Amino acid sequence: MTDVHIQTAILDMGRRARAAAHELVKLTSEQKNAILLAMADEIDAQQPAILEANAKDLEAAHEKGLTKAMIDRLTLDPKRLKAVADAVREVAALPDPVGEVLSAWTRPNGLRITKKRVPIGVIGIIFESRPNVTTDAASLCFKTGNATLLRGGSEAIHSNVALAAALQTGGERAGLPQDSVQLIPFTDRASVEHMARMDQFMDLIIPRGGKGLIEKVVATARMPVIKHYDGVCHIYVAPSADQDMAVKLILNSKTQKPGVCNALETVLVHESIAKEFYPKLATALREAKVEMRGDSTAVTYLGSDAKAATEEDWSTEYLDLILSLKTISSFSDAVSHINRYGSHHTDSIVTKDRAEAERFMHEVDSAVVLHNASTRFNDGGEFGFGAEIGISTDKLHARGPMGLAELCSYKYLIDGDGQTR
Amino acid sequence: MTDVHIQTAILDMGRRARAAAHELVKLTSEQKNAILLAMADEIDAQQPAILEANAKDLEAAHEKGLTKAMIDRLTLDPKRLKAVADAVREVAALPDPVGEVLSAWTRPNGLRITKKRVPIGVIGIIFESRPNVTTDAASLCFKTGNATLLRGGSEAIHSNVALAAALQTGGERAGLPQDSVQLIPFTDRASVEHMARMDQFMDLIIPRGGKGLIEKVVATARMPVIKHYDGVCHIYVAPSADQDMAVKLILNSKTQKPGVCNALETVLVHESIAKEFYPKLATALREAKVEMRGDSTAVTYLGSDAKAATEEDWSTEYLDLILSLKTISSFSDAVSHINRYGSHHTDSIVTKDRAEAERFMHEVDSAVVLHNASTRFNDGGEFGFGAEIGISTDKLHARGPMGLAELCSYKYLIDGDGQTR
Repeated sequence: MTDVHIQTAILDMGRRARAAAHELVKLTSEQKNAILLAMADEIDAQQPAILEANAKDLEAAHEKGLTKAMIDRLTLDPKRLKAVADAVREVAALPDPVGEVLSAWTRPNGLRITKKRVPIGVIGIIFESRPNVTTDAASLCFKTGNATLLRGGSEAIHSNVALAAALQTGGERAGLPQDSVQLIPFTDRASVEHMARMDQFMDLIIPRGGKGLIEKVVATARMPVIKHYDGVCHIYVAPSADQDMAVKLILNSKTQKPGVCNALETVLVHESIAKEFYPKLATALREAKVEMRGDSTAVTYLGSDAKAATEEDWSTEYLDLILSLKTISSFSDAVSHINRYGSHHTDSIVTKDRAEAERFMHEVDSAVVLHNASTRFNDGGEFGFGAEIGISTDKLHARGPMGLAELCSYKYLIDGDGQTR
Repeated sequence: MTDVHIQTAILDMGRRARAAAHELVKLTSEQKNAILLAMADEIDAQQPAILEANAKDLEAAHEKGLTKAMIDRLTLDPKRLKAVADAVREVAALPDPVGEVLSAWTRPNGLRITKKRVPIGVIGIIFESRPNVTTDAASLCFKTGNATLLRGGSEAIHSNVALAAALQTGGERAGLPQDSVQLIPFTDRASVEHMARMDQFMDLIIPRGGKGLIEKVVATARMPVIKHYDGVCHIYVAPSADQDMAVKLILNSKTQKPGVCNALETVLVHESIAKEFYPKLATALREAKVEMRGDSTAVTYLGSDAKAATEEDWSTEYLDLILSLKTISSFSDAVSHINRYGSHHTDSIVTKDRAEAERFMHEVDSAVVLHNASTRFNDGGEFGFGAEIGISTDKLHARGPMGLAELCSYKYLIDGDGQTR
């Protein structure tokens, strides 16, 4: 296929997604949930075909020499596929945010205004190697009444096609409007650009993947993009901190799952407690095999196994058992450091001083700010959202954990009896 | 100045705006209101200098041969300037949405989560000829704790510089952090591009002007854009409509202020009432000097002064005393027509059938949907918002009238006592 043919095919899928979106608003919550359950059942029923498709992807992955970690992310087996289907069932069980009345009031002229939650319309999801994103993203977008255009990476193309087919077959048997869930079968880079420019048919685009992918979408997209960028997360240990609690929170934030965006990357320590606190912390970090990179004061007190941090360390998301440590001389310096070097994702203060905690949470410009708690709590599940499509580092529309409500827009309904201006 | 110098200067303004934004969050509502009042007083005090600057713009406008309407939009006089200052005072008097608790809950592990309204950060406003946008946009953005980068058109550059200087001088006397309100003094097209790419320093860009300007910003911007596109607004007259009410609503929606986005452009009439309704409507439209463009049925009943509508008419925003009229054969056709040809802005149904009205408001995919009311009610003032920065045609973050709350983001504050995962 030439690029023009690919572009035409993608535009046609967009046009059909828009038409599907207008049908989707007519479904009740009960109808949507029945469709989700039928989708899950079909994933179970199609197990042999899906695993066969996955085997093709795995064969190609071995030939291409993908890393062990990448192959693991790609791999489906009966147990994992069962979990994929069960995740769709869990989405069916969640409350439906669509139709919720957000506010309602009556104007002096008698007009009754109701602000109501509605689907966004058509959502494009661009993702990389994990095939379960196909079903996760599609089920969350469908639950909120949106049509979805999915475009996965080449590594998982056979698995993605098989999973999308199961969603469509199962869903349509239970009344899913045609073209509600479409997988774009092209994996070249140009297809991302064609999607990103199609703002007449797509209301939102969500890139789920590495920085390179997100940057590409941001540079091209004509419609809103919700980004899930890096988390350069901090814990500030204030003079009055419970130091044992600080050690425990730093350890949990850094080591409980180092490869995720809400893991800790930098600790700030007030100079007045440096001499006492750093050695305690060093013992715990050493035991947990965390590499330490500090400023000169930190290195002095942490011990000889601590390395000197460079300027680059302060803005690095290690996603690994590495921690940068900086000594600061005032509360304001802590806030300034976080607002300058951080990624406005998740930052925590450990202090017994309530006023200081409140000032920290007020002045630090991040999606989630915590007091005496692990950074790992910036998470849709931990918030009680039931499901999340990601953690937004944007400030518009969705900030922080993005659940079902954030996959919705709103509209105003006005009821009158002949009012004019 | 070369383009590189302009780009460097704009980047530097962005960097300073970001720093100002971090200072702005520290201001209380009382401090912000005092600053707004000082800004207004300074506009009054600087009246001679501002009018002198405006005279320079007007002189250039006459030389360039701008239209009478454009010159009128550009013109300031003592009365208009007083209104400009008073509009800033009105913003001071509005309630401050910043700090409002949007929701709060406690998790089973004891974490207390609070979702709080906060400023967005740095907002860029790009506008065309009206100089009062300088003070309107700056006062609304400042009220909500945002730093502002304003970039007006070349026609009003002297007036804009003088007004921005008054805001800064007055504001800073009352404690406005430096660089909170900056006017970009470049009016070339490249300066818009430099702003639109500066996503490290700007969180949102709002183009206020014609379609060409908005398109340019959409194509270039790396940060979110809130768009105020055309309004191709409809009224659907259903079989059970109170026909006198329908005539009254159509007349008001079309003629009360034809040049605005929430004015009516297309009337849809159910075929079962065409013969009875069109002649009544034609009489009223004729009297109001509204040009009629209809499909063949409409033309038959409207009379010989009605023209035949072309396909293009159905998606045209006339902004003038012209109305297109189409006969439709079912409720579904009305909804389909609106969702296809409309601009998802404002659409109204006239009917006595409540179930039909509810279905219309549910299925029509527009920011504001009305029942038995004029389309002119899609307006921040009419909603009771006190002020609006525009009417968004976007579905993300802000849809419909955009008031102070829509100039805010939110953050999550989490209070713990040592919780880990």
